[in-house]
Amino acid sequence: MKKKAFLLVALMAAVSLSAGARVVTDSIQSKVLGDKVKFNVWLPFGFEMNADAKYPVLYLLHGFTDTYSAWVEKGRVNEIADELLGTGEISPMVIVMPNAGGPDTKNIWNGYFDMDGWAYEKFFFTEFIPYVEGKYRCVGDRGHRAVSGLSMGGGGSTVYAQRHPDMFSSCYAMSAWLTSGDTPINKDDKASYVMKAVHDHDAIEFVKNASDEVKTDLRTVRWFIDIGDDDFLFDQDIDLYGAMRRARIPCELRVRNGGHTWEYWHTALRTSLPFASRNFDSK
Amino acid sequence: MKKKAFLLVALMAAVSLSAGARVVTDSIQSKVLGDKVKFNVWLPFGFEMNADAKYPVLYLLHGFTDTYSAWVEKGRVNEIADELLGTGEISPMVIVMPNAGGPDTKNIWNGYFDMDGWAYEKFFFTEFIPYVEGKYRCVGDRGHRAVSGLSMGGGGSTVYAQRHPDMFSSCYAMSAWLTSGDTPINKDDKASYVMKAVHDHDAIEFVKNASDEVKTDLRTVRWFIDIGDDDFLFDQDIDLYGAMRRARIPCELRVRNGGHTWEYWHTALRTSLPFASRNFDSK
Amino acid sequence: MKKKAFLLVALMAAVSLSAGARVVTDSIQSKVLGDKVKFNVWLPFGFEMNADAKYPVLYLLHGFTDTYSAWVEKGRVNEIADELLGTGEISPMVIVMPNAGGPDTKNIWNGYFDMDGWAYEKFFFTEFIPYVEGKYRCVGDRGHRAVSGLSMGGGGSTVYAQRHPDMFSSCYAMSAWLTSGDTPINKDDKASYVMKAVHDHDAIEFVKNASDEVKTDLRTVRWFIDIGDDDFLFDQDIDLYGAMRRARIPCELRVRNGGHTWEYWHTALRTSLPFASRNFDSK
Amino acid sequence: MKKKAFLLVALMAAVSLSAGARVVTDSIQSKVLGDKVKFNVWLPFGFEMNADAKYPVLYLLHGFTDTYSAWVEKGRVNEIADELLGTGEISPMVIVMPNAGGPDTKNIWNGYFDMDGWAYEKFFFTEFIPYVEGKYRCVGDRGHRAVSGLSMGGGGSTVYAQRHPDMFSSCYAMSAWLTSGDTPINKDDKASYVMKAVHDHDAIEFVKNASDEVKTDLRTVRWFIDIGDDDFLFDQDIDLYGAMRRARIPCELRVRNGGHTWEYWHTALRTSLPFASRNFDSK
Repeated sequence: MKKKAFLLVALMAAVSLSAGARVVTDSIQSKVLGDKVKFNVWLPFGFEMNADAKYPVLYLLHGFTDTYSAWVEKGRVNEIADELLGTGEISPMVIVMPNAGGPDTKNIWNGYFDMDGWAYEKFFFTEFIPYVEGKYRCVGDRGHRAVSGLSMGGGGSTVYAQRHPDMFSSCYAMSAWLTSGDTPINKDDKASYVMKAVHDHDAIEFVKNASDEVKTDLRTVRWFIDIGDDDFLFDQDIDLYGAMRRARIPCELRVRNGGHTWEYWHTALRTSLPFASRNFDSK
Repeated sequence: MKKKAFLLVALMAAVSLSAGARVVTDSIQSKVLGDKVKFNVWLPFGFEMNADAKYPVLYLLHGFTDTYSAWVEKGRVNEIADELLGTGEISPMVIVMPNAGGPDTKNIWNGYFDMDGWAYEKFFFTEFIPYVEGKYRCVGDRGHRAVSGLSMGGGGSTVYAQRHPDMFSSCYAMSAWLTSGDTPINKDDKASYVMKAVHDHDAIEFVKNASDEVKTDLRTVRWFIDIGDDDFLFDQDIDLYGAMRRARIPCELRVRNGGHTWEYWHTALRTSLPFASRNFDSK
Repeated sequence: MKKKAFLLVALMAAVSLSAGARVVTDSIQSKVLGDKVKFNVWLPFGFEMNADAKYPVLYLLHGFTDTYSAWVEKGRVNEIADELLGTGEISPMVIVMPNAGGPDTKNIWNGYFDMDGWAYEKFFFTEFIPYVEGKYRCVGDRGHRAVSGLSMGGGGSTVYAQRHPDMFSSCYAMSAWLTSGDTPINKDDKASYVMKAVHDHDAIEFVKNASDEVKTDLRTVRWFIDIGDDDFLFDQDIDLYGAMRRARIPCELRVRNGGHTWEYWHTALRTSLPFASRNFDSK
Repeated sequence: MKKKAFLLVALMAAVSLSAGARVVTDSIQSKVLGDKVKFNVWLPFGFEMNADAKYPVLYLLHGFTDTYSAWVEKGRVNEIADELLGTGEISPMVIVMPNAGGPDTKNIWNGYFDMDGWAYEKFFFTEFIPYVEGKYRCVGDRGHRAVSGLSMGGGGSTVYAQRHPDMFSSCYAMSAWLTSGDTPINKDDKASYVMKAVHDHDAIEFVKNASDEVKTDLRTVRWFIDIGDDDFLFDQDIDLYGAMRRARIPCELRVRNGGHTWEYWHTALRTSLPFASRNFDSK
């Protein structure tokens, strides 16, 4: 009788279980941006109980037209991180999903780069990282910090790790948007701001033009590029990989089946999260 | 300039693309159940254009506490089926997701088996199959019909293929609920109806008690059991596999990492859909 | 007691089992080449018992410096084909592994293309295919014939399917050697013959220069390119994929981890064999 | 011209490359066994150059009828370990493959357990571990020691970790032989010695009979069971998993496609090696 009741409860619990149990939605008031910026944080099992523990951190960046909530709502990051943590395929870490666009911000889909009136990169490194790593008990050094993202966030990840190799142990770029034509700013077209910013932060040119000193720095980061064979950004990502190879900067490349879709990024998490985890320093 | 515009459109389209483009929500007025029963149908690319073509069909059954919409809304079936069709890992087929419970029906979570006032199995085989296969241009024979499902629907799939081996070429059971204690009906507890029905259609006992003739029939179906190592139904599914082996009925078994979760069933689709597809007769 | 004895026998049998049980080593006396050419054939379970059955056929080509025996001895093709056949991931087929080089031939490592004194392509299409498909009960039409291979054999597969699209339903190129510089023949360097032949059969230039009519023909073949991210032939294979995309000839691409190694090709078989199988016509 | 020459050299080198470049065959003169015992050691890239570094160690045990050379010659362990190390899926470690049988020893296929005249377990823990970990610069504590094996070696791994949980951080059992009937010793049947020893070291009974104290110790080891759905030892391995679950000792289980074959163990290495690696202590 007890067994029967248990089974029933288990059946109902399994299906109705709140998926986002350990995802916290938070925000920071940014002086740099003059705006409140929301973000999601996935906390590993045991975070509350181990009040003195410090954790490595992964920044997971969303794409163009999305916001901070996309990785949880569309990307299943919490379910997948729970599963990988359970089997030890990732070690306990904090996953931070910041906002870089959408209607909650002054502009729309502004992106990860500094532009007129939107100094997001400055915000990210001078305000956001210190705030979030202090509040969520992160170790706070490059050996315990990684960056990843999809599409515009894949480009953002790559550029952040290129320009701040002293800040990240690894970078995993999914379906990354890495280059754009030299589009003039059109005040009526908010997207033109992002395109201009991507053009001005061309990740492929960065590698091609890197000095020996810069290349030496880039070799301290572990790089991974993951791009679908049907993605319209395919050529860009292959070009980056080619530039990395010619510059003798070690980099992993995978081309899997698919296009620029959530199904692709969902399965990419199963590679991305363990990659970040195993490239964290052991204490 | 054109290239830039294309890129922007592609970026926006990729993310905002309606995922369920080829999923049709339909319903049937059932005389047997005295109720309208909803269902979803995924149609393969090319279905409308090839007006004379006939297709094999997979019935994909939802679990306890869910409804016909779960496989699309929580299970990503349309995205995964699109991808597998694109690479040829499945051939064009129709995927039918019927409703066997929830607040849209007279009772709540009634399940796939005949019980007092809810002759669902009778409805399924005498009304539903003929209606849906006629309307959606299915070939309509056992060689072009498969069944799969999760939890209560995994049990439903198994029992349907056990009791109607002349109707299905293959059966893929995910995290299947196969047996239950002998619970008395409690009119205030709708779930007790389902538990009683599962008890009365015990899939493990069915194999154990099968005559040689029945075993011969069961060997004409291709069977697959997929169960997580942390699933609370693990023992049941292993018991079924053991009974199948001892009865010398060929059956595949996979135990993957995970519990009774959508993440498990989501990845199960990548095995389930190709399994159904390759076991359809070639014309 | 019986159970114990069975267990012991099973333990010993499992480990000592001859892996190549259904691999036949055969040869053909070629008038075109003026030489005897060896080949291996993997026959599916049931081949002997079904004396009237006809089968689809996959030609699986070895690489430079290897011979017909490499796919069995180094590639584990028989074990993997057995497993995939057992689960239905491939349908019953005949796998033919011809010899295109090595000390058994007049020259050494001569390759798959016609050259002075070594008209291998002529041999392959006018002598070898008719002989092997007659002797080993192959259906014998393009819908039931596929080609695959590694390195020099990946290039051979690609060129054969390019020049004979009426002969193959699919082509799966692993780590393909597709282009070479314009090396002069050096009579003391046997390898220079092969390099010259690859140069004269450049698979990338073939696509770039294809007429609309040829492109139409190429679209009737299903193409798959599989190349490791550390392979020294990486750029060649990506160039072919780019040429295919620009010519709007559907083609799958996968870049997995690895270099130009047997471990790569061994795992490639798990994709290659099902790809060939599902692109055969159903009868 | 240079490029051509490079390509040719690369093509020839790739195929003829000696696979076992970093595998050392060594031996130890055992007083306990009164015999010389051979073993293979796989050393990670960089082992010689980092003369002061210490490494974690994995003991990888062969099966009945095989010897110390099986994991290299039939199991491809060196190729797979090289690849996994290259991508960081394993950290640098030493893999030790000892001999527990075969014609090089006094008896034939004696196995991992103490028996009359063959005190292998005593040898393993008092002579072999100290010798090999000293000679090959292993860290030498439980946090940097793991055990794995196939068939008889899967049973050996399990029993070693059960009886010495203070010695291993993790245990990965492949297709494990865990129990045997109570066979009398038959001096003319060498195999009867092994069967008796397995019976006397029944790994399933060990868990069933474990005291609370022993269970607490067992929970300090990370356990993984990997068994094919067609393996004749399937029931044994499932029984062990059931016993572990009921004893509330965390344990992973995977049932994949296949039987008691090298192809199964070959692919098992891709899970086994990372499992050992991620369960080593970070320093």
